[in-house]
Amino acid sequence: MKATFLHGSYDIRLDTVDDPTILAATDAIVRVVAACVCGSDLWSYRGINAFTTVKAIGHELVGVVEEVGADVHSLRPGDFVISPFTISDNTCPHCRAGMQTACEHLAFFAGQDADGLPFGGAQSEYVRIPLADGTLVSLRDVPDDAMIPSLLALADVMATGWHAAVSAGVREGDTVVVVGDGAVGLLGVLSAARMGAERVLSMSRHPDRQALARRFGATDIVAERGAEGAGQVLELTDGVGAEAVLECVGTRESMDQAVACARPGATVGFVGVPHGVIPPIEPMFRRNVGLAGGMAPVRNYLPRLRDDVLGGALDPGAVFDLTLPLAQVAQGYVAMDERRAIKSLLRP
Amino acid sequence: MKATFLHGSYDIRLDTVDDPTILAATDAIVRVVAACVCGSDLWSYRGINAFTTVKAIGHELVGVVEEVGADVHSLRPGDFVISPFTISDNTCPHCRAGMQTACEHLAFFAGQDADGLPFGGAQSEYVRIPLADGTLVSLRDVPDDAMIPSLLALADVMATGWHAAVSAGVREGDTVVVVGDGAVGLLGVLSAARMGAERVLSMSRHPDRQALARRFGATDIVAERGAEGAGQVLELTDGVGAEAVLECVGTRESMDQAVACARPGATVGFVGVPHGVIPPIEPMFRRNVGLAGGMAPVRNYLPRLRDDVLGGALDPGAVFDLTLPLAQVAQGYVAMDERRAIKSLLRP
Repeated sequence: MKATFLHGSYDIRLDTVDDPTILAATDAIVRVVAACVCGSDLWSYRGINAFTTVKAIGHELVGVVEEVGADVHSLRPGDFVISPFTISDNTCPHCRAGMQTACEHLAFFAGQDADGLPFGGAQSEYVRIPLADGTLVSLRDVPDDAMIPSLLALADVMATGWHAAVSAGVREGDTVVVVGDGAVGLLGVLSAARMGAERVLSMSRHPDRQALARRFGATDIVAERGAEGAGQVLELTDGVGAEAVLECVGTRESMDQAVACARPGATVGFVGVPHGVIPPIEPMFRRNVGLAGGMAPVRNYLPRLRDDVLGGALDPGAVFDLTLPLAQVAQGYVAMDERRAIKSLLRP
Repeated sequence: MKATFLHGSYDIRLDTVDDPTILAATDAIVRVVAACVCGSDLWSYRGINAFTTVKAIGHELVGVVEEVGADVHSLRPGDFVISPFTISDNTCPHCRAGMQTACEHLAFFAGQDADGLPFGGAQSEYVRIPLADGTLVSLRDVPDDAMIPSLLALADVMATGWHAAVSAGVREGDTVVVVGDGAVGLLGVLSAARMGAERVLSMSRHPDRQALARRFGATDIVAERGAEGAGQVLELTDGVGAEAVLECVGTRESMDQAVACARPGATVGFVGVPHGVIPPIEPMFRRNVGLAGGMAPVRNYLPRLRDDVLGGALDPGAVFDLTLPLAQVAQGYVAMDERRAIKSLLRP
């Protein structure tokens, strides 16, 4: 089969490798219908996350089950499935508490599973999914092709934006600020709107992303950043600040900006993988601004978000503004690296 | 009148100064019935918080209203009152949201009020309380003398321990860890128990404080600190961690320890004034451990806590293990500095 590998900084290639096979009785083999490139893949692509060997890449997919192991009971060949970006048993104490990203059998794509068996990347034609019952969520029917982007978005970015909003404690009627206009930030806007926020302020300075933020439910756009941007938020909220803030970037500057936008007693929901973040403890203490979030427990949110997509209440697929055949995966990376695309969808 | 002043490091004196007078129509003059020394006073006492002039000190008191300004409507001379450690108008948007420590007219004892008028310390015979209606909480009757310590504890430490538990989201049936065995930590134990926690693990290594923690409802004592202490907590919770953690110290080490004790998805409620704290963002992200808290909005909690004390459901006064006449205030500081006392109560 064809599968994507990172051979070095800015060196993405589609290589030919052996098809994956069932290695454990709890495995499923999934034929990938659509995969995509994540903002976090760019950290490796740009060489910021150091690596020493050629490595598989990709962790978002929807597909069709081809084969299941003897101990898989909730799935069968032909099922259309969404895979979260982490593997979970969905039975351990953390999974039962809805924190599947802390599963006792947690595993990540493009590495090893909890038993040390090889686990490929999602930007491939096929992938072996360990602990298939605890990880995959299926649909009753194979969906229309038009629905594929929105379902694929649930594998990571939509569920991550949702987690930012859940962590920030967004409630009906709230004023919500979203820091970051990448795919996750934009879907944080969509999440806050879906949860009934009355005002959603998107901090964005790219006209195309501002337009998408408005489509997803942003009522205000704040183009300024840092202290200036926070000042603008205060002005727009009568000097009070926002009831909930979604931090969807992961830098020290974005975190400072997020805390500065929060009203006293509010929570910053943070989901950007932190790179050099030092939470500003003094203003947090003085103004009682909390911080909550982390790796999104996608598996927890998937059934609800799937039903919202199928029912037409959520259309997160609009974040994909570039669709390519898997053969052109390298161009998908280039477009995102150069900010010509928000998110690239790949069709094997 | 007599009032306490810090003249330099380790130099506490009771000086004679003019009696306070009504300066604004919203003021009340209160005769102090009992005041006390706070752990945070020690930061100044030890010279760790730098200061350059002789300064008044103390921010916790109960007393009797002597006189009120023309615009004070909820209080009259003779009322017994509890004062939070901050001044609030109780009408601004932050106060109405229960965040009185972010009041638009916030002021601290031993400095100036929001109008720039001088505002004395609480370790005194009398004190002028600005914005008396929005700040003070009264009792219907003057209480028994035996009730004074528990009512005084509400001015800061009990309400602060309560805020740690509220911020950590303690719920009935939870397993709760409390980091810190000072007055606030001990009252955090009492708060968690009062909220219905099933298990309360107190991290303490002083036998007298362990005993008080048990009296307040601790079910387990963990004497180890740091990673070893967190390991002990994990062992006591079947490897899962605590549903809520109260961080009642305010150092980098105590924060790391608190985060390490939390189960994924849990929140650390922090109320120790941060000194050199750098929240450990990587494990927080990886394990979805949140952080919430700050300066306790005492005024928000006072009516409820007052009723709990008067009804016998809470007895926080047990944290006072040294009672002195105000004339011996310096000894109250020495005893706490040398850890011979948990908290010193002063009777003018």
